[in-house]
Amino acid sequence: MSQKAIDSLKELGKKAALLSGAIHLLEWDQETLMPEEGAANRAEQLALLSSILHEMETAEVFKKGLEQAENEQLSDENKACLREWKRDYHKAVALPPAFVETFARTTSQALQIWKEAREKSDFSLFAPMLEKIVSLNRQKADYLGYQEKPYDALLDLFEPQATTANITTLFEALKKEIVPLLKAINSTKKVEQESVKGLFSQDAQLAFSRQVAEKMGFSFKKGRLDLSTHPFCTSLHPKDTRITTRIDENDPIGCLMGVIHETGHALYEEGLPEEWFGTPLGQALSMGMHESQSRFWETRIGQSRPFWKGFYPLLKKTFPKPLQNIDEETFYRSVNRVEPTFIRVEADEVTYPLHVILRFELEQALINDKLPVKEIPSLWNEKMAKYLEITPPNDRLGCLQDIHWSLGLMGYFPTYTLGNIYAATLFDAFKNEHPDWDKRLETTDLSFVNEWQNKAVHLHGRRYGSVELLEKISKRPFSAEPYTTYLKEKYKKIYPGISLS
Amino acid sequence: MSQKAIDSLKELGKKAALLSGAIHLLEWDQETLMPEEGAANRAEQLALLSSILHEMETAEVFKKGLEQAENEQLSDENKACLREWKRDYHKAVALPPAFVETFARTTSQALQIWKEAREKSDFSLFAPMLEKIVSLNRQKADYLGYQEKPYDALLDLFEPQATTANITTLFEALKKEIVPLLKAINSTKKVEQESVKGLFSQDAQLAFSRQVAEKMGFSFKKGRLDLSTHPFCTSLHPKDTRITTRIDENDPIGCLMGVIHETGHALYEEGLPEEWFGTPLGQALSMGMHESQSRFWETRIGQSRPFWKGFYPLLKKTFPKPLQNIDEETFYRSVNRVEPTFIRVEADEVTYPLHVILRFELEQALINDKLPVKEIPSLWNEKMAKYLEITPPNDRLGCLQDIHWSLGLMGYFPTYTLGNIYAATLFDAFKNEHPDWDKRLETTDLSFVNEWQNKAVHLHGRRYGSVELLEKISKRPFSAEPYTTYLKEKYKKIYPGISLS
Repeated sequence: MSQKAIDSLKELGKKAALLSGAIHLLEWDQETLMPEEGAANRAEQLALLSSILHEMETAEVFKKGLEQAENEQLSDENKACLREWKRDYHKAVALPPAFVETFARTTSQALQIWKEAREKSDFSLFAPMLEKIVSLNRQKADYLGYQEKPYDALLDLFEPQATTANITTLFEALKKEIVPLLKAINSTKKVEQESVKGLFSQDAQLAFSRQVAEKMGFSFKKGRLDLSTHPFCTSLHPKDTRITTRIDENDPIGCLMGVIHETGHALYEEGLPEEWFGTPLGQALSMGMHESQSRFWETRIGQSRPFWKGFYPLLKKTFPKPLQNIDEETFYRSVNRVEPTFIRVEADEVTYPLHVILRFELEQALINDKLPVKEIPSLWNEKMAKYLEITPPNDRLGCLQDIHWSLGLMGYFPTYTLGNIYAATLFDAFKNEHPDWDKRLETTDLSFVNEWQNKAVHLHGRRYGSVELLEKISKRPFSAEPYTTYLKEKYKKIYPGISLS
Repeated sequence: MSQKAIDSLKELGKKAALLSGAIHLLEWDQETLMPEEGAANRAEQLALLSSILHEMETAEVFKKGLEQAENEQLSDENKACLREWKRDYHKAVALPPAFVETFARTTSQALQIWKEAREKSDFSLFAPMLEKIVSLNRQKADYLGYQEKPYDALLDLFEPQATTANITTLFEALKKEIVPLLKAINSTKKVEQESVKGLFSQDAQLAFSRQVAEKMGFSFKKGRLDLSTHPFCTSLHPKDTRITTRIDENDPIGCLMGVIHETGHALYEEGLPEEWFGTPLGQALSMGMHESQSRFWETRIGQSRPFWKGFYPLLKKTFPKPLQNIDEETFYRSVNRVEPTFIRVEADEVTYPLHVILRFELEQALINDKLPVKEIPSLWNEKMAKYLEITPPNDRLGCLQDIHWSLGLMGYFPTYTLGNIYAATLFDAFKNEHPDWDKRLETTDLSFVNEWQNKAVHLHGRRYGSVELLEKISKRPFSAEPYTTYLKEKYKKIYPGISLS
């Protein structure tokens, strides 16, 4: 008897997953441990392994398997695998090799020029490269295909089924609520937020963060925690998932929140069903859904009142001296301080989505409406003033701050905020099932959060679409409403002086 | 104009080297940092990448390149590349895939059984597996081909051009000198060797070792030092070479000597000519030559009198308390204490080669003379008594101590001692060129040692054979004489009471 096509697809998929894990290790090592002069060789190793992976994903034998499996009797799970494999295959073969090469060459050059432009705070240096990148992304959209708008094809790479239209709807709903909320917070007489100052040693911060990660469900037998310039999570396999953080010895919160966020990503990867490793059902659903897991942990748990009721006494025990005059409520408010700033990655929970919305609006205009690149700086500053009530004094603090465009990434930014919207929907469902969630958090019990997420999200891999899964979980139509409601309720308590219509 | 075959070989070789470096990173991570549950996935990643590498090395396009390059006008360097590539290709295609699979399956089973047998100190458990492994190695020799003895084919995998006959000649010469030397040391009234005791903290040991590695020429911009169960060195590229060590807080020497030894290996890898990366001229010559570099550093430099004249004051500054009553001479003697022990990896400079000779004699008898496996324990103990004047009380401390046979490795052991013989030849040439070497060592200057080795050995890659290169450097016929002379002269000074005919 010859092998069923679906089973040979699984064998090929397994190989691709193993190779992909090896690539992740090379990347992880590059960011954490690699000696600096190893960089050029590492770039060549990564290019080679990526091209071998691409060959695997586009091999004739894989294509034939996809065609033959269509005619086989398949379980629902296998049908979902086939559907997603076809999606992946279409994307993998859509771009001609010559285009991929031009894209890689242009972005590698753009990265250097962006660094210089940012250094000099001179957008005009970067503008010609950004022109090229926009034009290449439009071409990319044409190769990939789309129904309504070219930007949809780019969005779909990171968030399947997301479109310019449905993101616009979501983001307009956010603006309508968040812009007034921020204005209200800005205009109110600030609640006094005594700032947390002192020396918080690296070792103690790391030890405390490890303890929290373990309480969340992260196992150091299946993962690691290391230091890197930017915190990230990578996974080689559900049993080998690695997170990083960074430490500022003047700030007891950044490292911990980094660890909680990345542990949220890691628990998703660890929680994927191992028996489906190498298939789409063993892969995370989307960038947005990934971000929903990390943001759920970071904002709904780690920045919540009951969490600090449980953990602040432990933190105070770890850092008795610098925290001696800070009470729990003051500390909680300081963790959740809202203040408009120029830099997205430093933004708080209320202003962050506005940074993302601004980028989405500019990106989709560049791609869909051929907005001239030269208008970016003024539009950026205009939107900053309108949404955040501050104006960047220069482009370094404005439209040159993010690396994404120089890497050729367009359509990626919205997933940050989609993650927050998804997290809100999930959080409501979670609270329905665990009405005593806050009482349990107050006892520093976190295990049930991961257990809930695992059952609700992790175990399904890519079986369902994001919105489909969220509606299955919440049993209501998907919208931005739970997110805006959550923000308003939380920050009305933190800034009791504000009035919202 | 079409590409020259030699250039397309170089492109293929470069890819193989990049992939091989990725495999080395996966292996390094496995031994140093990988979370324990990642092991099963790592084994699958390594198997996949190794099979992709094997495909590259045996690809039809590579074979054609070898044939076509024969007809091209080549520089001497390119001729050497072609010669070595043909050697590698022959070995890569010699073994039928079914045989390779049987070999892998058998040794994977053998490893488990060996662990159990060693645990229980019961050779009879391991004997049936060893039978299989010997028989598979004989088959392997037949596939690879040889002129005189089947064991020659196995030796050639680790030490090109080594044969049973020429190793027998060398090792007989060693026995003739070292066995009486050891007997003399054993029978003399021991020079009092006050033992070095106390607590030597992990951090301070590591810091001291790093300092010595840097003085040797190791750059932490091109490499790393980490901890692992067994010290080793691995290289991804001349600019990314990593060593490990282990630390016993009761012993100030083991960690340092491990670091000096592995740094010797690392400097070889770092010193390979980068412009030949991906070709045989960018690869180390042989296992024996690699070991010659590490042993040169460890024994001729790190365990030498002038080294400790320079470094003992620094060590004493690092560990003032435990070393307060130990003077420099006493410390030096303690570093070079000779004492027959059962375990090879714990052996000193005088007894180590005898351990290796014993293994060589048994291995070659198993392969060449069909020595029955069941005779191994008694022969082992007989030879231990004859060469080292001690008899293992059980097989755990005797013929079951080493992992090599269970991994299928036969023909590997002799390279440890070849390395020492090579090192002696190199050391004489080095002293000729640097008659003031000891004075410079006394000032803790080590840089000139690496410079000399680099020019003499590293830069040539695999251009010359081992013996050819040694004779070029020393300008005399290669023999074991420099090694035995070195041992006798050094240890007559350390044990002044001994008399040698």
